[in-house]
Amino acid sequence: MPPMKPGERLIYLPLGGAGEIGMNAYVYGYGMPGKERLILVDLGVAFPDMDGSPGVDLIMADIKWLTDRLDRLEAIFITHAHEDHIGALPHLWAQLKKPVYARAFTATIGRMKLEEAGLARDAIRTVKPRPETVTAGPFEVQFVPVSHSIPESAALVIDTPAGRIVHSGDFKLDRNPIVGEAWDDARFEEIALERPIKALMCDSTNVFSPLPGRSESTLAVPLAELIAAQGGMVVATTFASNVARLKTLAEAGRAAGRTICLLGRAMKRMVLAAEEAGVLQGFPRHVTPEDALEVSRKNLMLIVTGSQGERRAASAQLARGKYLGLEMREGDTFLFSSKTIPGNERDVLKVVNAFSEKGVNIVDDTGGRYHVSGHANRPDLEHVHRLLLPDMVVPMHGEHRHLREHVKLANDAGIASIIATNGTMVNLTGEMPAVAERIEAGRVYLDGTALVGALDGVVRERIRLALNGHVTVTVIVDEDGEALGEPWVDTMGLPPTGRGGRDLAETLEGDLADFVEGAGRKVMADDDKLEEALKRVVRQVTMEEIGKKPEVIVVISRLSSE
Amino acid sequence: MPPMKPGERLIYLPLGGAGEIGMNAYVYGYGMPGKERLILVDLGVAFPDMDGSPGVDLIMADIKWLTDRLDRLEAIFITHAHEDHIGALPHLWAQLKKPVYARAFTATIGRMKLEEAGLARDAIRTVKPRPETVTAGPFEVQFVPVSHSIPESAALVIDTPAGRIVHSGDFKLDRNPIVGEAWDDARFEEIALERPIKALMCDSTNVFSPLPGRSESTLAVPLAELIAAQGGMVVATTFASNVARLKTLAEAGRAAGRTICLLGRAMKRMVLAAEEAGVLQGFPRHVTPEDALEVSRKNLMLIVTGSQGERRAASAQLARGKYLGLEMREGDTFLFSSKTIPGNERDVLKVVNAFSEKGVNIVDDTGGRYHVSGHANRPDLEHVHRLLLPDMVVPMHGEHRHLREHVKLANDAGIASIIATNGTMVNLTGEMPAVAERIEAGRVYLDGTALVGALDGVVRERIRLALNGHVTVTVIVDEDGEALGEPWVDTMGLPPTGRGGRDLAETLEGDLADFVEGAGRKVMADDDKLEEALKRVVRQVTMEEIGKKPEVIVVISRLSSE
Repeated sequence: MPPMKPGERLIYLPLGGAGEIGMNAYVYGYGMPGKERLILVDLGVAFPDMDGSPGVDLIMADIKWLTDRLDRLEAIFITHAHEDHIGALPHLWAQLKKPVYARAFTATIGRMKLEEAGLARDAIRTVKPRPETVTAGPFEVQFVPVSHSIPESAALVIDTPAGRIVHSGDFKLDRNPIVGEAWDDARFEEIALERPIKALMCDSTNVFSPLPGRSESTLAVPLAELIAAQGGMVVATTFASNVARLKTLAEAGRAAGRTICLLGRAMKRMVLAAEEAGVLQGFPRHVTPEDALEVSRKNLMLIVTGSQGERRAASAQLARGKYLGLEMREGDTFLFSSKTIPGNERDVLKVVNAFSEKGVNIVDDTGGRYHVSGHANRPDLEHVHRLLLPDMVVPMHGEHRHLREHVKLANDAGIASIIATNGTMVNLTGEMPAVAERIEAGRVYLDGTALVGALDGVVRERIRLALNGHVTVTVIVDEDGEALGEPWVDTMGLPPTGRGGRDLAETLEGDLADFVEGAGRKVMADDDKLEEALKRVVRQVTMEEIGKKPEVIVVISRLSSE
Repeated sequence: MPPMKPGERLIYLPLGGAGEIGMNAYVYGYGMPGKERLILVDLGVAFPDMDGSPGVDLIMADIKWLTDRLDRLEAIFITHAHEDHIGALPHLWAQLKKPVYARAFTATIGRMKLEEAGLARDAIRTVKPRPETVTAGPFEVQFVPVSHSIPESAALVIDTPAGRIVHSGDFKLDRNPIVGEAWDDARFEEIALERPIKALMCDSTNVFSPLPGRSESTLAVPLAELIAAQGGMVVATTFASNVARLKTLAEAGRAAGRTICLLGRAMKRMVLAAEEAGVLQGFPRHVTPEDALEVSRKNLMLIVTGSQGERRAASAQLARGKYLGLEMREGDTFLFSSKTIPGNERDVLKVVNAFSEKGVNIVDDTGGRYHVSGHANRPDLEHVHRLLLPDMVVPMHGEHRHLREHVKLANDAGIASIIATNGTMVNLTGEMPAVAERIEAGRVYLDGTALVGALDGVVRERIRLALNGHVTVTVIVDEDGEALGEPWVDTMGLPPTGRGGRDLAETLEGDLADFVEGAGRKVMADDDKLEEALKRVVRQVTMEEIGKKPEVIVVISRLSSE
């Protein structure tokens, strides 16, 4: 590591993940101001919802700041294979075209994704855990195994001339995580002893959870007891990427003499990838859905996708009826070995009530017996602060309220800290973190196959359509500025009849015809004026008739004599 | 009460509220099958959401079954003034035009609502608590005070020739509810002694809450301590109709030397109505927002609407910035003296994070210290079952999962029970409840000022617009079946550019022009065929260009020679 030259600085710039949970994308830079060499850590997605992003497929950080500085970008590092950390890679990598570094399991998932997107698999390079080191410009980066709810999650040790950074990634303090490496205090003590930690960039997800986090291994007995006690078919759902949980569930099922069947593409992929990457051994034998049909209900256990009530996942399909020939019945048991992510309550309850209608017993995580979180809780964060003794803590992976609380926690321990939300460039060079600059940090939507900016108005138009409905007005004007025939109207998403049962489209057409007939030459000759006037008529009439102001498109066709 | 005649029966038919929480509407009937005289208990609304009912104003039970039998409907009874029990009255009463009975506070609110809807206030008749009795055909109905989270909630004692029914309404076992009457075991013991209870129709909301419910009065001390400990301005939100909570909050504020100001129309209305109805006395003096501006922050407390993060309520306005000149700042405290209703998490968190950005301290109900529920918990329900010893319990006011659990609870106590969801007509005449018939139980949307059936497709069209966007294609065809000019295209809610940055509308217009040019006479002459063909071209091109299939409206104008 070369010494630091005068004037050089170390910067941190979250483009996503700081101020929300999702679409993680963190930039580090080192060098002279404006000429820093850059690396990117993680490139994830967030998930759309009907309220704010209807019809959108995925949400990603706007990486324009990076693509404007491509010559300065050295490499991309992916901490683990959760969608909010790796999901944008197949959609944005082509704009970056830099080497991607990840551990074996993460690399396996990443390559599958690149391949599906028609990109070259070899963009991703597999890195072994520390001491293996990747040099990327002025950065030396090591992957440090941490426990989380997916195999091979990693913290990064990022060495720079200005000091050592630990980027925590997503982690929990699990000393017995079933699959993958345990959390190891000694590993981090050694890192801090080797070189003092200048800054800890730290997961904030569970800063509001007051009790120490629980180990994945604590679930084995309760799950085994629960499943052994059931009479009918047992169906369990959890996050597909929680391979350890899948294993615990499958083993509990086997111990109860049940045949195991995995349902849901994501889940089968994850198990395959984990086996391929060598992180999963001894996953219990499982059968295909066709073979599962031959097994008696009391000897069958399905492990399925859809813990968040996703409409097309296996859970929701089973709630609605048969899925691949399999069907739940009175006396069967459905287990949520998962928590409901805020915002998904309604979808999850839909599934629960549909199962209730079938007489299926629902077991959820109310008592905390059948699920543990993958993130470090408040006392765990305090423990890590003490373990690493960094000069500063910069909270990440959290909504604003999480970042704020995490800053308080660090300050209470006497550690400097700062709230740095997306777009806040922080100078880490000195003793205290300081805001260097604020850049525009936006979001990009994957909408079908197109990328659109969240502020481009495309999705806002769709929201307006959903709230207000749509009216198309067509009018043909001849070369003399006279309407040819009467205007006509098509409506979509509007009540068909207004006051007194009048047909809405007919009422509109009548009033528009009256308007056009009475309109002066000046209005009829001017497309903009005519359009504005017709829109006004439509809004006025619909307001009177149905109390709504729809979105209006006016098509004016001018015929010229040829 | 006349004796029961052979062949007569007592029926129960929930039209809303059984299988969901919201839009309560329960029908009782007595008489010969198909000729029963009817009463309606409650006529409430449910609230729309962007997922399932975008742009909708309110959701109500479909009362067609009743309007088809208006000659048999005797009266309407409203148990209390929560929106999910009274909210549909102003929108549907004109279809029923029957006398409405309610206690004083409920009647006050009801009359305000009718008046705003331009209906006669005198449709609502004020009834005193039992022993006052309303006779409605074969029914004799008494209002029995119960504690809940709004003043003057009532259970109904419904006497019929076939026996006595207790319709619980919404209730909790609060012996010290601050405002309004306490729950009184003796009152219900007397009712059961007077005449055995044939059926208890019972609130199921909190059947999954394992501990006994807590009294409203338990909040006074924690709230007073909390507010006294704050330095800056204190803003508290709760449900506007929880007048007892408003009083407790205001008193806690006064005790801490703070001037009280109420923000939000609903809240001020509720306090006024409660004072007018005589159920609220001694509400602490409060000032207008203008006067509040003159008070120093540390001596000010606002009590505001918007506990569910509603966009236009006072809480959300304060989270976004100034509201009526008032603004929250670093060091102020915002208190949620409320719980988040499932489905509202995202909106509430938006408000929380916006306050976090301002440096406002958020106190929520995580520890259960600052809010209590208004519904009877599981042990409370068991208590009421034992108290009334009904022949049967019919759970209401719950999603399917609640009804199912409540049936189990009753069965465990040796009481007959049945899951009766909306549209399930239950015969209560015999010893066991039995399904008599299943009718179509739908929902009606208030959409602007129009009423549309939930299955009419209007809102489904809007959801499709939100997901897929919209394309209008216009083409003019002359009398020879030739296109006049080229087709043109307007898009809404679609990415403006497709693959390779091509303009989407231009690409569409080009391909449509090619199609029209090559189209045979047969297609050009047939509106249906031409429309279908043009839609197909649009969907194919948009799929290629942006990976989406929009909603398409095709306008074909045929010019005739005149």
